[in-house]
Amino acid sequence: MQTLPHVVIIGAGFGGLRVARGLRKFPISVTVIDRRNHHLFQPLLYQVATAALSPADIATPVRSVLSDQSDADVMLDEVIGVNPQKKEVLLTGRSVNYDYLVIATGSTHSYFGHDDWEKFAPGLKTIADATNIRQKILLAFEKAEIEPDPVLRKNYLTFIIVGGGPTGVEMAGSIAELAKVALASDFRHIDPKSARIILIEANTRVLATFPESLSANAKKVLQNLGVEVMNGARVEKVDAEGVLVSGKRIFSSTVMWAAGVQASPAGKWLNAETDRSGRVKVQPDLSVANHPEIFVIGDTAHVLSKKGIPLPGVAPVAMQQGSYVAKLIRSRIAGRPFTEKFTYFNKGNLATIGRASAVCDLGKIKLTGFIAWLAWIFVHIFYLIGFRNRVLVLLQWAWSYVTYQRGARLITSELRTEIPSTSQKAAP
Amino acid sequence: MQTLPHVVIIGAGFGGLRVARGLRKFPISVTVIDRRNHHLFQPLLYQVATAALSPADIATPVRSVLSDQSDADVMLDEVIGVNPQKKEVLLTGRSVNYDYLVIATGSTHSYFGHDDWEKFAPGLKTIADATNIRQKILLAFEKAEIEPDPVLRKNYLTFIIVGGGPTGVEMAGSIAELAKVALASDFRHIDPKSARIILIEANTRVLATFPESLSANAKKVLQNLGVEVMNGARVEKVDAEGVLVSGKRIFSSTVMWAAGVQASPAGKWLNAETDRSGRVKVQPDLSVANHPEIFVIGDTAHVLSKKGIPLPGVAPVAMQQGSYVAKLIRSRIAGRPFTEKFTYFNKGNLATIGRASAVCDLGKIKLTGFIAWLAWIFVHIFYLIGFRNRVLVLLQWAWSYVTYQRGARLITSELRTEIPSTSQKAAP
Repeated sequence: MQTLPHVVIIGAGFGGLRVARGLRKFPISVTVIDRRNHHLFQPLLYQVATAALSPADIATPVRSVLSDQSDADVMLDEVIGVNPQKKEVLLTGRSVNYDYLVIATGSTHSYFGHDDWEKFAPGLKTIADATNIRQKILLAFEKAEIEPDPVLRKNYLTFIIVGGGPTGVEMAGSIAELAKVALASDFRHIDPKSARIILIEANTRVLATFPESLSANAKKVLQNLGVEVMNGARVEKVDAEGVLVSGKRIFSSTVMWAAGVQASPAGKWLNAETDRSGRVKVQPDLSVANHPEIFVIGDTAHVLSKKGIPLPGVAPVAMQQGSYVAKLIRSRIAGRPFTEKFTYFNKGNLATIGRASAVCDLGKIKLTGFIAWLAWIFVHIFYLIGFRNRVLVLLQWAWSYVTYQRGARLITSELRTEIPSTSQKAAP
Repeated sequence: MQTLPHVVIIGAGFGGLRVARGLRKFPISVTVIDRRNHHLFQPLLYQVATAALSPADIATPVRSVLSDQSDADVMLDEVIGVNPQKKEVLLTGRSVNYDYLVIATGSTHSYFGHDDWEKFAPGLKTIADATNIRQKILLAFEKAEIEPDPVLRKNYLTFIIVGGGPTGVEMAGSIAELAKVALASDFRHIDPKSARIILIEANTRVLATFPESLSANAKKVLQNLGVEVMNGARVEKVDAEGVLVSGKRIFSSTVMWAAGVQASPAGKWLNAETDRSGRVKVQPDLSVANHPEIFVIGDTAHVLSKKGIPLPGVAPVAMQQGSYVAKLIRSRIAGRPFTEKFTYFNKGNLATIGRASAVCDLGKIKLTGFIAWLAWIFVHIFYLIGFRNRVLVLLQWAWSYVTYQRGARLITSELRTEIPSTSQKAAP
């Protein structure tokens, strides 16, 4: 039996899966390595964090995605390094050889050198992050309900989101609707509508990568939902009591981080040149300098747009890069010349603000409000992997839209470990 | 303002919620205390454990259930005791006074004095239990896939369920179908169909509370699904390597416990007489001896049937007891005489075995196979709380039925802490 050329793909996100699917039906052996068993539809993760969707609605087992691709192997394992000389990927306790390597390992939160802030202000990258944040938000209302001290009660009802990019804006809008609509009649000792939701953004406007008119619209819609938007505000400290922002203390028991990202350590594995946030500076064909057989794509790659600005870490960029690399590898293996450079075609940017509003930047066309929200729904349903997920998510959105209710309001961890301090404070 | 009589209900399960709903629209103040924020539809918990449903599909926030009942208060807190003299319930750090108290605190697993077995053979009572077992089952296949040692690989592909009651039978059937159908084409180095699923039952037959003909049918259906049913088998030891059963060692990395139950500590709180499994021996009106204002219902109560056999710990018993106690309290508060004793009306028993078979005991009528499965679906959908849950669960069942797929195959915890030993063993 002839040995097929072996392509190893690290990471089963938008980029990695595009590469794997692009090599289907070719005489190429593919191995996808991920430390999680599921592909995650990250753009909807904030909906899990705010109790609108269930984890399984936005996650698909990687094995299911590649089930019909018999030359594709899936490994649930953690990569600890790469040996480019030996062409091998090092896992915890074993290694895998490759002919071509694609690194699509994504990014994580960056606290700009303040890693100690993470435990007070968790970020949103994984399903565990989302269910933890969901629990934190729901518990804050529960703690407020049984808290006799009005000052502490107010702290429990103050929610702070640091970072006014799409994730921060979406989180803020969604928490506002949760507090002011979905939970409104469920408590007897507090008024959830009195909750403060504060969005802190260092830039002079939210959604800074969008056109100014859309930023202004997003801010107005957020304010109508009751969100306090603080622009040009610098977070100086995050601790158990809340945040210090531009010299002012805001007390809050629930702070969430949506500010910075840090690329995965691929640059270190390869000893390659990276930018400030750790992204590998790749060649025009997305390969690594002096290693035409290694490619870096998605949030881990530093690629300049035609205008000379680094491409953003969003799904469409990763997907287009994945398709490009699959095509390149197919040509290379087939012995065909391939000189095309990677170029990103920006189809538009979307961000949603609450249950019936969004902003949509299609270049010349800019949409806001309900029509933008419908565009947002269409795009997100279209790209969700799996027919079942699409139907379930659409159904839950329809239900939420009609009833204003959130279906996934679950606190699942043990209570005893969760509210000891409150309960003691609450002694009569 | 006149003070309303105050009914405190501990536990928001089937029994507790029935009491609360039965007091709606009467001039009665109700407080429901639970240490979890959701009512759980426990009969479908095994479907979460075997990746067929998501937690939110079978759980509803208690606050949502009682949202329209403005005299009902919900407390997310843990009860640590009861003071019947002062008529107060003791919580962690505070207390709540009552005029009437209903204890509906359910049961937990019993390891018959071998509590050290729990960490090797988890039971299935909460959502956290279910997602942990789901993760354990899915990880066993993943570990087998990367395991070069054939002996260890076999251990990973051996699943043992201890206890052949409805939960054990349902788990065994569901794991068999997961292994032999849903996962069948997703692995490259193992054949999931080769997995061994072993159901161990000390009694001479499975579903011992059902008529013999239905037990025999259930056993046959399980065997057709590939489950090895061991009857009259005594588990003597459970440890990290598997189980010792009737003197014989069976190696397995995934053992699940569905054998015994232990009532909640209500008997200790009340200093009341209990049976062997800790259930409070209540009066014919479900009150506690010498305390006509305290009632114990559901899995925590020891109540004899007309035949003199203790009523089983199932949802219909708890629900009928809840309705009865609500009626009794309403009469008592209204000053009407109430002398009716509680009697249980058994509408029938159901257990499902896999995706298209069940057994159904309606007394004179006994159903098996597909028709019993449809009855099972109808009953479970009917009693699921919330329109949304019913639609979602029905949709997911339909999808699973047509495609043989499981939609909730998620491993969400960090890998690093999960498979260190395997990975090291797997070094080439």
